[in-house]
Amino acid sequence: MPNCKTLTLRMNRNIMLNESFDFAYEHYTQRINTVLVDELAKIAPSLLKQAMEYSLLAEGKRIRPLLVYATGQMFACELEKLDAPAAALEAIHTYSLIHDDLPAMDNDELRRGLPTCHIKFDEATAILAGDALQTYAFSLLANAPTLSDSNKIAMIKELAKASGVQGMCLGQLLDLQAERKIVSLEQLNHIHINKTGALIHAAVYLGMLAAGKTAMLYEQDLREYAYSIGLAFQIQDDILDVIGNKDIMGKNQGADQQLAKNTYTSLIGLEQSIQTSQNLYKQAIEALDRIPYNSDVLRQLADFVITRSK
Amino acid sequence: MPNCKTLTLRMNRNIMLNESFDFAYEHYTQRINTVLVDELAKIAPSLLKQAMEYSLLAEGKRIRPLLVYATGQMFACELEKLDAPAAALEAIHTYSLIHDDLPAMDNDELRRGLPTCHIKFDEATAILAGDALQTYAFSLLANAPTLSDSNKIAMIKELAKASGVQGMCLGQLLDLQAERKIVSLEQLNHIHINKTGALIHAAVYLGMLAAGKTAMLYEQDLREYAYSIGLAFQIQDDILDVIGNKDIMGKNQGADQQLAKNTYTSLIGLEQSIQTSQNLYKQAIEALDRIPYNSDVLRQLADFVITRSK
Repeated sequence: MPNCKTLTLRMNRNIMLNESFDFAYEHYTQRINTVLVDELAKIAPSLLKQAMEYSLLAEGKRIRPLLVYATGQMFACELEKLDAPAAALEAIHTYSLIHDDLPAMDNDELRRGLPTCHIKFDEATAILAGDALQTYAFSLLANAPTLSDSNKIAMIKELAKASGVQGMCLGQLLDLQAERKIVSLEQLNHIHINKTGALIHAAVYLGMLAAGKTAMLYEQDLREYAYSIGLAFQIQDDILDVIGNKDIMGKNQGADQQLAKNTYTSLIGLEQSIQTSQNLYKQAIEALDRIPYNSDVLRQLADFVITRSK
Repeated sequence: MPNCKTLTLRMNRNIMLNESFDFAYEHYTQRINTVLVDELAKIAPSLLKQAMEYSLLAEGKRIRPLLVYATGQMFACELEKLDAPAAALEAIHTYSLIHDDLPAMDNDELRRGLPTCHIKFDEATAILAGDALQTYAFSLLANAPTLSDSNKIAMIKELAKASGVQGMCLGQLLDLQAERKIVSLEQLNHIHINKTGALIHAAVYLGMLAAGKTAMLYEQDLREYAYSIGLAFQIQDDILDVIGNKDIMGKNQGADQQLAKNTYTSLIGLEQSIQTSQNLYKQAIEALDRIPYNSDVLRQLADFVITRSK
């Protein structure tokens, strides 16, 4: 059992960590929001731009950009090199939300505390806004002023792999196909490793690519960290769908149940879901322990993923 | 007036041109189909892949890949360098068709002689197949084995610009917004320069980029050629919507009228539409005349665009 002094030190460290995390969270969130606003300002006004902007600038958790920044900065990568991948990740994520919310898919009316894109505008505009946001993500990477061409190409490859027919889009279709069916835990993992995990993984991976050679020495550990928090993130989503608060979450609670979706909570129960999420958290932290750099922000992000209330 | 000998020579040249065009058309069409089949074979089987494949391999005119090949080969570019941009263009074009056909957009049930993607599968699958095809286009370019990184980046920039919020997606939304409204000829041109023209322009531009420095000396002429046939292509589409044959076209005729779309034929009449299309053809040919390379295939493609029956 730790003595009083150790305990006080640890508590102090936790307070420092929390403070530094709050600072980092605030700092990176502000930065990505500024980057997105600045980049959008370069586009000529149109209804299409308005719809893209509406969804992209709605208050999100910005987990993926945060992962890009935190991973890159762990290896002392300049923020300027991380802006484009962070913005690209958020653009892909936002496009996927817009399309997932469509009547033909999850038919959601509330997202990020606001009417979903097709409710605010109309279905056609929402489909096109999603389409154009995807294009925009690749455009942001290709036009990044501070990245080398080889770095850009490596990022575009990874982003495309993570979000396409063998990544996020596949996960979303598998998820829809599994509605009203009983799937195994293995199948559920497969769905979510693709649907949510692939893009979270890409966020960490792009941060690593921007940071360069030193970061890439820890590719395996970073992959494991990303994999673990990616799955934990989805499990927490399922937990919140059962016990969450609609006002805090900014989206309707119980939506999964209504759609007869397969969730971790429905498959293995609430308690076991919380346990699995904590095990994944532990794996994520162990992976970071193997990296001899200051990984405080990534640690706290893992913590945030499994303790978040929205 | 040309004398008999000149006339015979010209007729012979036309026969040769037609023969060489048929050969080139067949050759390039076969090549792009093989490339697409080979590339798709690398993707693990899934319903999503099936839906992508269904639309991508349906018998299309392959105008955009043909433009890539013909432009590149005019400057003696190896076919291997043109495969990825040709396939990427067709993937973007196909994704746009799938999404445009959706009930929330043009609500079409027939495309390329087959049920549209959302009829064959369902709406959710069609939305995701379109999404994944867009991702796939960028992935094909980023993974092209025979292009330099700087070439790939230039192509990705151009493709994103042509297909996104200031290109094809914008054009599609402007077109939908203009339904049941009276627009000016200038506005109609603006819609179609974005909706169809941008991607046709990108096809020529990517062919030029693959061919390298010599080709880029003629950037302005190639842009003019692409601009002219891009608009002529849309005008011909409108003409065919009035006088075309459903069985030859593989899609429903009169669809534009049903949707109260603004078309060239409704705005300036059939005769004037044909005249405008021929003027654009002339401009395209004049642009090619300024390029001291064998542009026979591009000439015949321009000819095909305004004389096609589907």
